[in-house]
Amino acid sequence: MSGDTITIPTASDFHIHLRQDAMMRMIVPRIAEGGVSLVYVMPNLKPPITRTEQALTYKAQLEKLAPNVTFLMTLYLSPELTPEEVRRAKQAGIPSTKSDGKLRSLDSHHLACSGVKSYPRGVTTNSDSGIESYEVYYPVFKTMEEEGLVLNLHGEIPSDDEKDICVMNAEERFLPHLAQLHANFPNLKIVLEHATSKAAVDMVKSLGDTVACTITIHHLQLIVDDWAGQAHHFCKPVAKYPHDRQALREVVAEGHPRFFLGTDSAPHPRTTKETAHAHAGVFTTPLVLPYLATILESFGALDRLQGFACEFGKRFYGVMERDRGKTEIVRLARESWVVPERYHFHIEGESEAGTGVETESVVPFWAERKIAWKIVEGV
Amino acid sequence: MSGDTITIPTASDFHIHLRQDAMMRMIVPRIAEGGVSLVYVMPNLKPPITRTEQALTYKAQLEKLAPNVTFLMTLYLSPELTPEEVRRAKQAGIPSTKSDGKLRSLDSHHLACSGVKSYPRGVTTNSDSGIESYEVYYPVFKTMEEEGLVLNLHGEIPSDDEKDICVMNAEERFLPHLAQLHANFPNLKIVLEHATSKAAVDMVKSLGDTVACTITIHHLQLIVDDWAGQAHHFCKPVAKYPHDRQALREVVAEGHPRFFLGTDSAPHPRTTKETAHAHAGVFTTPLVLPYLATILESFGALDRLQGFACEFGKRFYGVMERDRGKTEIVRLARESWVVPERYHFHIEGESEAGTGVETESVVPFWAERKIAWKIVEGV
Repeated sequence: MSGDTITIPTASDFHIHLRQDAMMRMIVPRIAEGGVSLVYVMPNLKPPITRTEQALTYKAQLEKLAPNVTFLMTLYLSPELTPEEVRRAKQAGIPSTKSDGKLRSLDSHHLACSGVKSYPRGVTTNSDSGIESYEVYYPVFKTMEEEGLVLNLHGEIPSDDEKDICVMNAEERFLPHLAQLHANFPNLKIVLEHATSKAAVDMVKSLGDTVACTITIHHLQLIVDDWAGQAHHFCKPVAKYPHDRQALREVVAEGHPRFFLGTDSAPHPRTTKETAHAHAGVFTTPLVLPYLATILESFGALDRLQGFACEFGKRFYGVMERDRGKTEIVRLARESWVVPERYHFHIEGESEAGTGVETESVVPFWAERKIAWKIVEGV
Repeated sequence: MSGDTITIPTASDFHIHLRQDAMMRMIVPRIAEGGVSLVYVMPNLKPPITRTEQALTYKAQLEKLAPNVTFLMTLYLSPELTPEEVRRAKQAGIPSTKSDGKLRSLDSHHLACSGVKSYPRGVTTNSDSGIESYEVYYPVFKTMEEEGLVLNLHGEIPSDDEKDICVMNAEERFLPHLAQLHANFPNLKIVLEHATSKAAVDMVKSLGDTVACTITIHHLQLIVDDWAGQAHHFCKPVAKYPHDRQALREVVAEGHPRFFLGTDSAPHPRTTKETAHAHAGVFTTPLVLPYLATILESFGALDRLQGFACEFGKRFYGVMERDRGKTEIVRLARESWVVPERYHFHIEGESEAGTGVETESVVPFWAERKIAWKIVEGV
């Protein structure tokens, strides 16, 4: 890394939403554009991915659209996911990411599912099938611990007026559950996803080496003021106070190895954002490394880009990408340019007026704003 | 008041935005529809109303549109407002609302301006001319105290990352300024406008009888979750935690005479709400009493409707409406009906394509939702 160029390995995004159908076909080829070669794919499709076969079918669709990207798949925690289902995956010969402390090489083509994602019911997009209580899943977690699957937590408690729980404290109120799960399953790898609060950073730091935390790009930049009336900055969990953002920045600047990139990039059609009831999600996939370099530099942590975006996540998960015969790198140059206004895609469908093609678009984070870094040699 | 009908005097709205031009012509005739006969009009026009003549011109426009409504006018606190300007208003023979403890009858036609509105710079719609420090205005406040003008405070500190100030705590952080102003000007009537927090309720209760507080309809109903991604619920100050809403409800249920209705109804064209950067404001003017009756009943405070909406504000300001020869009343009946989807208005203007008429609309609070009370005999 010199003052005006950065050369790092391709990045890993340990939390991404790739959607389905036309949206998926637009999004997936853009993963590489952002400098990313490995993604950890969320299962909140319609219907949610609750069985290994579904995950493998989805994975095949994704690989067809981006053959050079490594897709790590997850299952949606629900009553359909039994200890038997977890073991079946194992008996099928799927390599695990068991926490034996060793970094092991896994060929992603042989990996079915790396983890299980838990959503509290109703807190975010397509979370209607989410869980209401963890204890009923303890047999599943025990099997996951034995088999080496990672538990990915959307760490929010549903809002509750009586208990003074709302979107601003839903994450903090969740943290005792994280601590309890870790105490009960100390060898289960747990990732608190998309942390937004100082309380979450402090909690994860206080727990053992089997507990990690993803941080998004946008939560390193936004506070509550930024989503007040700004639909494209509205996501769940919502961005919080300045001191919360500061805590996220500090743990990245510190280079803490259990805090790594998971963008939670969550594209929605523009018409479902710029409306009376906006969908929750920020879209960052096409510009992951340019955004991150710009933001990390703004708070003096550009030297942490490689660890945060390329190394810590893979080390925690114990995964490596399959050998492509060479070490792949991304080169960024300091070059001021403007984030695209929209990314278009085409929905083919039938309506009352007949068969037709509708053009939709997704507005990216920081649309039409200047950004300081550009990828000049990519994936 | 029986179980299914309510008969009360017409209401007073001690905080309203009536806008200009086409929007004004749509809004003003709807004041009476909401069961309201007296309104306290905010001065944040373009340009803001900083001189008495401007206020009188604006008032004449409003009275032409709604001859039966009493309009109490305000000036915008800015460097243009000098002690001389305050005294000039007095020397012109304008009756004051001096806090001599007596309720006096004022003919609104003789009243130029009843108060002065202070906006911190940049915190809400058309507040670019807002103040940055109160101390430079102490000579103005002293004259207002002497002359009997009311100081209306938008009680928020501008956001500041370094000081951890954001939209969620901007009001609470403002409260020491309120206490200081009251200590320095104990006889100056001060209204903390549109309170949203338990901290504000506690502070106003703790201060003397010259300090009061307006509460909006929507802040009795909304919390932060409700404006997360919902543009029509986005306003400044933003709605806060459940415990804050509870404090507002409790002080209304208690019938505290220094807490009264100021709707802060702030209409914006739909196209400036359902967009990437929504304007701040909730529109409640056409349905003030139906909304209030429905909401107060939901937390068991329907018996406080008359005091909160019709009496306490006028008593604090020391104003009465001009004698119309009879006591005007509003009768509401328990009748489930649906809030209109939109209120349309027509903008005549010239564009590149020529002269034309554009139809715009404003989406009211609770659009298309059921409401429990209806005005059956009105203003």
